[in-house]
Amino acid sequence: MANGTVLLVLYEGGKHAVEQERLLGAIENELGIRKFIESNGYQLLTTIDKDPEPTSAVDRHLADAEIVITTPFYPAYITESRIAQAPNLKLAITAGVGSDHVDLDAANERKITVAEVTGSNVVSVAEHVLTTILVLIRNYNGGHDQAVTGEWDIAGVAKNEYDLEDKVISTVGAGRIGYRVLERLVAFNPKKLLYYDYQDLPVDAIKRLNDVSQLLNGRGDIVQRVEKLEDMVSQSDVVTINAPLHEGTKGLFNKELISYMKDGAYLVNTARGAICVAQDVADAVKSGKLAGYGGDVWDVQPAPKNHPWRSMNNKDQVGNAMTVHISGTSLDAQQRYAEGVKNILESYFTKKFDYRPQDVIVKDGKYATRAYGQKK
Amino acid sequence: MANGTVLLVLYEGGKHAVEQERLLGAIENELGIRKFIESNGYQLLTTIDKDPEPTSAVDRHLADAEIVITTPFYPAYITESRIAQAPNLKLAITAGVGSDHVDLDAANERKITVAEVTGSNVVSVAEHVLTTILVLIRNYNGGHDQAVTGEWDIAGVAKNEYDLEDKVISTVGAGRIGYRVLERLVAFNPKKLLYYDYQDLPVDAIKRLNDVSQLLNGRGDIVQRVEKLEDMVSQSDVVTINAPLHEGTKGLFNKELISYMKDGAYLVNTARGAICVAQDVADAVKSGKLAGYGGDVWDVQPAPKNHPWRSMNNKDQVGNAMTVHISGTSLDAQQRYAEGVKNILESYFTKKFDYRPQDVIVKDGKYATRAYGQKK
Repeated sequence: MANGTVLLVLYEGGKHAVEQERLLGAIENELGIRKFIESNGYQLLTTIDKDPEPTSAVDRHLADAEIVITTPFYPAYITESRIAQAPNLKLAITAGVGSDHVDLDAANERKITVAEVTGSNVVSVAEHVLTTILVLIRNYNGGHDQAVTGEWDIAGVAKNEYDLEDKVISTVGAGRIGYRVLERLVAFNPKKLLYYDYQDLPVDAIKRLNDVSQLLNGRGDIVQRVEKLEDMVSQSDVVTINAPLHEGTKGLFNKELISYMKDGAYLVNTARGAICVAQDVADAVKSGKLAGYGGDVWDVQPAPKNHPWRSMNNKDQVGNAMTVHISGTSLDAQQRYAEGVKNILESYFTKKFDYRPQDVIVKDGKYATRAYGQKK
Repeated sequence: MANGTVLLVLYEGGKHAVEQERLLGAIENELGIRKFIESNGYQLLTTIDKDPEPTSAVDRHLADAEIVITTPFYPAYITESRIAQAPNLKLAITAGVGSDHVDLDAANERKITVAEVTGSNVVSVAEHVLTTILVLIRNYNGGHDQAVTGEWDIAGVAKNEYDLEDKVISTVGAGRIGYRVLERLVAFNPKKLLYYDYQDLPVDAIKRLNDVSQLLNGRGDIVQRVEKLEDMVSQSDVVTINAPLHEGTKGLFNKELISYMKDGAYLVNTARGAICVAQDVADAVKSGKLAGYGGDVWDVQPAPKNHPWRSMNNKDQVGNAMTVHISGTSLDAQQRYAEGVKNILESYFTKKFDYRPQDVIVKDGKYATRAYGQKK
């Protein structure tokens, strides 16, 4: 007789999971934790069947589950109604970072612990931000499309191609990911690095960025906090969003805020799709107000085939650097978050509940971190 | 009566040049120097008709030209036979960097000065190197293709997706571009940065890179020169080529050298296409020996429609990050090299011949810089 049931919901890997054993985040490879779970006397159920509520396999299995493990890359939404139908649920683990697909208020009501593997993919996401910024500002897509389709029209690419050097770049959110983005940007010799956040960056973090800029570029004092978001975006050639989704950020980049941005600026969002109003962004790219938009997060995932971000482009058929939600799920990141999930489980199984504080989102009916709990 | 004739050969911009006046490198916008040339009593002839020799407009106009201005992005090859048919030619200017499309030995025979605008696009190229490395290692193409074609198969992307962090990255050539590539890489927290060059990096440049690594990543001493190219590539997860094309580098990356590379390594070449053997690279990508190849330079430009680098891919249909030759011709770079060409012309027109030393490739029958003159 099992102690209890662990429900694991991941994306399907299919032949990819067979060909690439390091693809731990695929359902077939089960984060590499089946033996560990079973050796602790728990039963492991796995499924990819998460929609629709309430007729999916997730709904059926939640009736028994004590622990549910989900991922932001293929989110099984743990809604208030699903929580109501899961009387044994004690722990919801996010294999990755970002637990907004879990109804945290409902989890608090039931004193369900919600934990994620903080830091497991901050570097991966920061790298994706840099990739996306460079792809957009250098018009990589325009150049690559010509390469593979047999064309050669340099002017047609170059007309939308700029250097990243000497630009004003800003981040909405300067937390674990946003700060790492700034670290990677500083070597590109930016004119200014601006940030918008509810708190100052630590003094030593600012000093580090300025010192590196002085060393590499001969100019210090490039980092600056801006109090008003409208002021920041109006100065920026590139804006990158590195903030969690909550009531204060949902729909933040709508037509009005975008109207404050410089004409021809770039917007990059690898945080959460719902921080931007999808149609407003698509309209801004189409009109040329934004020179480009990119990122890997969508307001619904998987994104529907007709999502406006799939087809948006400017008049030169470039300016779209969207990918499916991959930034945090590199093979290196998968190794890290699989390990982190195992550590959280170990802490639970042994009843120590000595989770890493930074991993805990809600516990004992309370929000554990500021970013998720704050209201506008 | 004009003092003499300046022949300018640039790529065609067409409607792009009309729509984007900053596209100075397009033939229509003439680097913005017509008035300047005519005010100095010279006649300006412009053409895009550079092939084939000896029946193109370039061949006809070279009969009179005292100065020829060409670009690496759309090279008019200034061959020995063309030089023989150009009795008045005194000065060949490259609008950009890289004058290997000019037969330098033949230019020396005739004591023709060959000059380029050194530094005008080193940053642009270094940025393209970073873009290409990130696109390959993070499998941006796989993720973007799915986004625009309506798919959602995370595992199919992630199986070829890694982080750049903690990798061994090496550059063949650590000159103006190679060093700037190292500067931009160091913030990505590499395990090691290796370089292969005929001379050591300056002590202060090495210290700067190590200091930045210590500041950002907590590990110093990451930069290392490697004496044998085979030794370097065998240790590297990513190899980037930042060396000029000359007898010692032509065909350098052939099947044999690639065989020394790590299985699944990435190769990036924004220097000159002919440094790699095209079919050997395409075979290595197809077989999976290389996880990817990218860059923007081709052994013949414009590349023919059936060039193997246009269609090469691995079994997962990724691993190709080629673009047409755009890295050095961003709008920011165009402004810099247009200005640089004007400065070289001014020096010539005023008979001061006080060119910036770093711009001079050959003059008075001699190679002015080591990199071009060296033999294997």
